[in-house]
Amino acid sequence: MDLSSFLTSLGTSFVIFLILMLVFAWLSSKPGNHVVYYPNRILKGLDPTGGSRTRSPFAWIQEALSSSEQDVISMSGVDTAVYFVFLATVLGIFVLSAVVLLPVLIPIAVTDDGIKNAKMNNTQTVETFSELDNLSMGNINLRSNRLWAFLLATYWVSFVAYYLTWKAYNHVSALRAEALMSPEIKAEQFAIIVRDIPPVPEGQTRKEQIDSFFRKLYPDTFYRSMIVTDNKEVNKLWVELEGYKKKLDRSVAVFAASKTEAKPEGVRPAHKTGFLGLVGKKVDSIEFYSEKINELVPKLESEQKATLREKQKNAALVFFNNRATAASAAQNLHAQIVDKWTVLAAPEPGQLIWANLYIDFIHRQVRQYIVYVIVALMILFYTIPIAAVSAITTLNNLKKYLPFLKPVVNIGALKSILEAFLPQLALIIFLAMLPKLLLFLSKSEGIPSEGHAVRAASGKYFYFTVLNVFIGVTLSGALFETLETIQKNPNSLVPLLASSLPGSATFFLTYVALKFFVGYGLELSRIVPLIIFHLKKKFLCKCEADVKDAWTPGDLGYGTRIPGDLLIFTLVLCYSVITPLIVPFGVIYFGLGWLILRNQALKVYVPSYETYGRIWPHIFNRIIASLLLYQLTMFGFFGVKKFFYAPILIPLPIISLIFAFLCHNKFYRAFADTALEVARYELKEAPNMDQVFRSFVPPSLSSEKVDDDQFEDARSQVSRSGSFV
Amino acid sequence: MDLSSFLTSLGTSFVIFLILMLVFAWLSSKPGNHVVYYPNRILKGLDPTGGSRTRSPFAWIQEALSSSEQDVISMSGVDTAVYFVFLATVLGIFVLSAVVLLPVLIPIAVTDDGIKNAKMNNTQTVETFSELDNLSMGNINLRSNRLWAFLLATYWVSFVAYYLTWKAYNHVSALRAEALMSPEIKAEQFAIIVRDIPPVPEGQTRKEQIDSFFRKLYPDTFYRSMIVTDNKEVNKLWVELEGYKKKLDRSVAVFAASKTEAKPEGVRPAHKTGFLGLVGKKVDSIEFYSEKINELVPKLESEQKATLREKQKNAALVFFNNRATAASAAQNLHAQIVDKWTVLAAPEPGQLIWANLYIDFIHRQVRQYIVYVIVALMILFYTIPIAAVSAITTLNNLKKYLPFLKPVVNIGALKSILEAFLPQLALIIFLAMLPKLLLFLSKSEGIPSEGHAVRAASGKYFYFTVLNVFIGVTLSGALFETLETIQKNPNSLVPLLASSLPGSATFFLTYVALKFFVGYGLELSRIVPLIIFHLKKKFLCKCEADVKDAWTPGDLGYGTRIPGDLLIFTLVLCYSVITPLIVPFGVIYFGLGWLILRNQALKVYVPSYETYGRIWPHIFNRIIASLLLYQLTMFGFFGVKKFFYAPILIPLPIISLIFAFLCHNKFYRAFADTALEVARYELKEAPNMDQVFRSFVPPSLSSEKVDDDQFEDARSQVSRSGSFV
Repeated sequence: MDLSSFLTSLGTSFVIFLILMLVFAWLSSKPGNHVVYYPNRILKGLDPTGGSRTRSPFAWIQEALSSSEQDVISMSGVDTAVYFVFLATVLGIFVLSAVVLLPVLIPIAVTDDGIKNAKMNNTQTVETFSELDNLSMGNINLRSNRLWAFLLATYWVSFVAYYLTWKAYNHVSALRAEALMSPEIKAEQFAIIVRDIPPVPEGQTRKEQIDSFFRKLYPDTFYRSMIVTDNKEVNKLWVELEGYKKKLDRSVAVFAASKTEAKPEGVRPAHKTGFLGLVGKKVDSIEFYSEKINELVPKLESEQKATLREKQKNAALVFFNNRATAASAAQNLHAQIVDKWTVLAAPEPGQLIWANLYIDFIHRQVRQYIVYVIVALMILFYTIPIAAVSAITTLNNLKKYLPFLKPVVNIGALKSILEAFLPQLALIIFLAMLPKLLLFLSKSEGIPSEGHAVRAASGKYFYFTVLNVFIGVTLSGALFETLETIQKNPNSLVPLLASSLPGSATFFLTYVALKFFVGYGLELSRIVPLIIFHLKKKFLCKCEADVKDAWTPGDLGYGTRIPGDLLIFTLVLCYSVITPLIVPFGVIYFGLGWLILRNQALKVYVPSYETYGRIWPHIFNRIIASLLLYQLTMFGFFGVKKFFYAPILIPLPIISLIFAFLCHNKFYRAFADTALEVARYELKEAPNMDQVFRSFVPPSLSSEKVDDDQFEDARSQVSRSGSFV
Repeated sequence: MDLSSFLTSLGTSFVIFLILMLVFAWLSSKPGNHVVYYPNRILKGLDPTGGSRTRSPFAWIQEALSSSEQDVISMSGVDTAVYFVFLATVLGIFVLSAVVLLPVLIPIAVTDDGIKNAKMNNTQTVETFSELDNLSMGNINLRSNRLWAFLLATYWVSFVAYYLTWKAYNHVSALRAEALMSPEIKAEQFAIIVRDIPPVPEGQTRKEQIDSFFRKLYPDTFYRSMIVTDNKEVNKLWVELEGYKKKLDRSVAVFAASKTEAKPEGVRPAHKTGFLGLVGKKVDSIEFYSEKINELVPKLESEQKATLREKQKNAALVFFNNRATAASAAQNLHAQIVDKWTVLAAPEPGQLIWANLYIDFIHRQVRQYIVYVIVALMILFYTIPIAAVSAITTLNNLKKYLPFLKPVVNIGALKSILEAFLPQLALIIFLAMLPKLLLFLSKSEGIPSEGHAVRAASGKYFYFTVLNVFIGVTLSGALFETLETIQKNPNSLVPLLASSLPGSATFFLTYVALKFFVGYGLELSRIVPLIIFHLKKKFLCKCEADVKDAWTPGDLGYGTRIPGDLLIFTLVLCYSVITPLIVPFGVIYFGLGWLILRNQALKVYVPSYETYGRIWPHIFNRIIASLLLYQLTMFGFFGVKKFFYAPILIPLPIISLIFAFLCHNKFYRAFADTALEVARYELKEAPNMDQVFRSFVPPSLSSEKVDDDQFEDARSQVSRSGSFV
């Protein structure tokens, strides 16, 4: 890619961005669209636009810039605040790097003539050098003393990264502590998860076993326990019942709406009972759904009873009337063999993955290793199943196995299009499904909370994108040709990667620019959710609840957003010294991202869970992984440049590892456990323990109609006296 | 080495062993030697020989075999029992391996003719094949199908090892639990170490700060705290004082002994005050020492006061009146930033390394990394400083720097001897000093207890011996020639090691035999301690206390014993499939070791500390390291044999790693922390907390003369009311 085509693509992206900005300014001012552009404020009962009638179309920029961290926490939670710490930290790393790299390295590179010499000697492999490459380390002659500047720059970027991530870790730790010591009563701070409970001893019930165990250890603070049950059946019935209830509400609403002045008796809605409401007997909807509900309610009730009595599993939630004790209990080793009575701090009630709570210790271990192996294989060889899929779905095979497609396939034009696009289609589908697949795999590990599963999936996705986008694109075709060399000597991968780097620089420059201009433009303007909302509202929504469902915005989506940002971080970092021109692009990406997502966090997205910043150590580890990749790449690239002093870089990865260990030792445990110092802070009022307990009862088991006594099978008596020792 | 010289060396060792056995039987029956052969029984107040007057000289064998694990625990503690679990486990691994390997592999090897073929073709590097090699895998032809048997044997040995170490881990964990739940009151179960206490806030004393922090968190169970002080000065004075007291006692004893019937007034002992009592003024010893003591006592007292008041450090011991709370407190995270208020379960009072308690978190981290780097460098390049030392100590240099040695060095015969032996002497001194050096380095890491420091040193020593003895001897000269190859391609190390293996088999066979016959013979007969004891008794001991000092036996010496055993384990394991003949030698080593050390543990050695089996996870990790080395070696050796199915061995190291992780997850935490289930067991009586507290006061600070009130500066008020929340 030469300079002009690079500038063209940059210009195009910028124009698209400007258009999207204007579109946003125009559309967001229309009150009918407020539910798309301000849903978070609306759901929190705030005035969407903050009271001002005539807003400047760019008021959001000023609002985002002037918002404090406390605003973010109160509107969107600690996790979102931590995400902004991450964005600000990376932005800081790139700004501080740019201050040194741009004015120093670019002049040094431009005034050398390495590319010209290489062209004349033609000793290097054939590469197409563009004008942009004159600004990069590629233009330095082999063994030149000018490489000293680049070597020192490598150190500078690393130390800037150490300093800022250290500060960020400190800051995030303080944010977490502040949230955990809040005087508000949070149900999850009074509960722990207990798993791997040993078999019930002769003559005791499960409830008695659990209660006596914990009452003995925590005589004054143990409140009660809730035995985890297998809710598969009851959940199914409950979902079915809720579905019918919703449909009934909708039918009633439709019926009410049909009572116009012209036709005051209205039209009773009707539908067909068969497939998708297209075939079958036509019935009166309101009657039909009422009947179904009347049938299901007693069924659900009896299933609830059966579940609580007969489907008790070897796991439980244990409640304490004091959050310091709960924090301490979640950290203590309770049994001599670690796979008995394992404890864990409880997540928010809504985050619990019930079915994972009662997986055995040994099964969790085995599942974890199996998932790791599957993911490792997927990252390394993901192209193979896709190739297999596209081989199976070749047209001839399609014709063979799905003969009814024959007439379609035989159309000439369609045939060639299909043949050309089937493999790409398989790839696109695979990549679109990947985050969901990784989330599914992470849940299969036996992780008991939603937030943790998302973190695990996000980490896997990061390694997938870095390996496949960064390393994959860089090595591109070269990889397969040299695969044999690598097999013989895996150490040759680093120089190979390093020597292929400068060639891909412009590609990645364009990639980053596209990401921020088009990606953030779409993010801010919310064109797609807007269109979907209006379509749904027009054609599908029958009542108010449907409309609300249509605009409910979802959360920021850490699972894919953070790996995406980390990929850009890795790209820019790895190229920072080789092609310093990429650093300003990184600055714009993270600066613009900070600004636009600040707006989205304050006004649009609604977090679906809160982990009090537990995502941070994961982000930190991946920042360190990127740093290591950067340092190894630079070491390899100095080798390619035949620089005699390249070994001066050897300490860098070692320093990175020690830095990571130090941070881990100093900060990590406070993210895994709650410090007692933090948990002992006073609450604003004594906790209503019954309410705390109730908030953990899964919705399918809690019913106003079912008498409370029936839960006693799976719960335990409230400890009324404290005299058990 | 050919067969006859091997048999000769084996026979010689065996004869030495028989002689030492007879010597032991004869010497141990003499009552005058009982303090050398039964010190543990004598110190415990038991009858040395168990009551029987006329013992069979081999009664000890029967006694060792019939002793139960409980006997070992009551005589020598849990750590010793764990050591026997280790010996029995390794013995089991080798016995179960031998049962399959000997009858299967040796016939397969003997009936092949690989060595003959190799000699005829002369394709292999020149090696001297002995008759013994016909019994080994070396005699199998390249690519032969017979290699299948060896491949399966590799799996068999691995799975035997997994099974038995798993069982052992389980058993040791139960032993530890049993010891920790004992109803006896152990001071260390009521105390925790608190380090990295933040600076004292304005207007508070250190004592108030610590007490209010812990009283708030543990209102009912907090007893009091003891602030750690810098005891360097006071220790010095105390040691001096104790020295004089001992000398005074001795002088009094000498004076009393001199009062014979012939000379009833006796001879007052006198000595010279100068260097080593050889020069200086002659003084009356009793008067001199009494005077010194009178001088020192007030000095010590004022220093004690000053220490307690002014040398308080940022660490403390905190006492609880309940061992479950102490166990829980030692596990809990107390501060949001992990480097503040770090806690740790207290070791036995005598094990505390006071000066390490108040090293800062960050310094501990940095020290640890520095020590790791030093040890790694020492393991890899230990020959370099030795070469340097011997270069410096060459005769010419000696003459230059120490001119007074000139006349000695110039004697002809002496000169040539010195020149020949100086480097070896340097090596021997280095190897003899190494365990002490490693212990010193481990203590420098900031480890706060003696037992932990010994474990750390022992682990380092293991890697040193395995790398230098096993790999060093195997590769021997070959290494330096091929160093260049390895640098180019580190992967070539494994095949190189593998191909050099068979050549060293006989060397190691002899080494193991020497170790058990001569080593264990000396161990049992205790010739050296016996001679030292009698020499000391005759020439140095002046009073009863001196005699007791002369025979006090010390402990088993895990620091060097366990690495030594593990080295033999590694050797035998790595050769087990290649030269199955080595396995019976391993069986004898560990069988004989079990028997003889059982005797020594029951009758001789007195453990100097108790860690309740915390050494086991260290041993386990090193067993796994040996297994991995064995599996990699075998993989390499099958490669050398050009066996097409060698990759079938690839899963083995992966299985080993997963096995190790599983064990770690399942068992390890119970070794780092005390499970609450265990700590909550009833005590036989309410603990005397004052006595518990006093047992932790260092001897240099506890004095009958000093009034108790003076300690209050560094201790805290007993919490008399429990109403602080």
